[in-house]
Amino acid sequence: MYTGRVTGAETFQRARRPEQKLRRQDDILRAARDLALRDGVRNVSLADIASRVGIHKSALLRYFETREQIFLELTAEAWRDWVRGLHDELDQARRGAADLVADVFARGFGDRPLLCDLIAHTPLNLERNVSPEAVRRYKLTSLAAVGEAAELVQAVLPALTVDEALEFVAAVASLAGAVWQIANPGPVLAELYASDPALGLACVELVPRLRRTAEILLAGLIPSRTPVDSGEDGAQ
Amino acid sequence: MYTGRVTGAETFQRARRPEQKLRRQDDILRAARDLALRDGVRNVSLADIASRVGIHKSALLRYFETREQIFLELTAEAWRDWVRGLHDELDQARRGAADLVADVFARGFGDRPLLCDLIAHTPLNLERNVSPEAVRRYKLTSLAAVGEAAELVQAVLPALTVDEALEFVAAVASLAGAVWQIANPGPVLAELYASDPALGLACVELVPRLRRTAEILLAGLIPSRTPVDSGEDGAQ
Repeated sequence: MYTGRVTGAETFQRARRPEQKLRRQDDILRAARDLALRDGVRNVSLADIASRVGIHKSALLRYFETREQIFLELTAEAWRDWVRGLHDELDQARRGAADLVADVFARGFGDRPLLCDLIAHTPLNLERNVSPEAVRRYKLTSLAAVGEAAELVQAVLPALTVDEALEFVAAVASLAGAVWQIANPGPVLAELYASDPALGLACVELVPRLRRTAEILLAGLIPSRTPVDSGEDGAQ
Repeated sequence: MYTGRVTGAETFQRARRPEQKLRRQDDILRAARDLALRDGVRNVSLADIASRVGIHKSALLRYFETREQIFLELTAEAWRDWVRGLHDELDQARRGAADLVADVFARGFGDRPLLCDLIAHTPLNLERNVSPEAVRRYKLTSLAAVGEAAELVQAVLPALTVDEALEFVAAVASLAGAVWQIANPGPVLAELYASDPALGLACVELVPRLRRTAEILLAGLIPSRTPVDSGEDGAQ
């Protein structure tokens, strides 16, 4: 497939054809994705990614600004994939099927461990070590995905307002990130969970926990429109 | 106050009296707390803490295993302080005051930025770089705090089961950690939020968001006991 090679190594580097550049970017993203799924996002360095692609770190930095930008691109990609998955399951859903919505959201995150891992890293690390342009592009993608998910929820549950559907999606997504980290402990803690009954309560399973919280949120959105209790204390 | 000095510098180090040891530990914890509140937990290294206390890193490691253990101790302390704050506001609360419970939980986290920052770091980093004994001690403390908070909720809202009160507390605590990170962006993102109206939606405020989600959860716990919708799809 390679054509158009020009003379001189340096000129070759600069004149790399757009489709080759894209292919190399894809290689880098795929390497980062594979390593993050295997070892966890927190354990994957820029050097690990470069080594897996088989290029030098400095070469990798011609394609991405930082390690964090690579993972931010993967997060954007994961949000787009997530919202496509919601369409597959909710586009034909019967109106009023709140249980189905809760289940689809719980599984939508449960089936995407990399997205869940990345959600916790995004505000903590990924959005802090990239250029304004990169973080802006990422934010527009994630906002679009959350907005589209809220529209899907509202189409199934038309009694909710757009803001309520957005509140639901934002809360479940934040919880997915937080609960996934708790449900996937490191080796020391995993061993304690297995051996110490006193710690059993701390151990959570992602999908059942998310499904239950999603059910509670969907059941509470409308009743909580007017305050569930109007008094601030018992003294009148 | 110093008494009991023995001869020889090395012997002196080893024979440090218990109350001096405790005082030094407190100095270290206070330094870590001050730095984390000023710079964010993610930006505080072991060297920063040692430098603020005025001791060498190797001396600091006689008191704590790792940077992560120092922050895990601060997290345990913050959970105990948080549950004391809940007692202050809920011990005399009128039965049925769900709005008050939502407000107290939202402010309980809003008033404790260090606890919120630490919650996100705990499963991601802090629990992964300490000994089994340290993580076990921490878990027992955090479980006790969450359990005590759930009892307080149940005392005000006796229609809830213990498990439901625990679900409420766990969800609000996880969200407090996740939302705090979003509500406290780095300088690049803060500048974008201020300058770019398209990103306005991504900007959240911790206390109103937590209060609203807490209200929704409290309103939804009982109605969602039986599924809000029993069908999985429209086809029978």
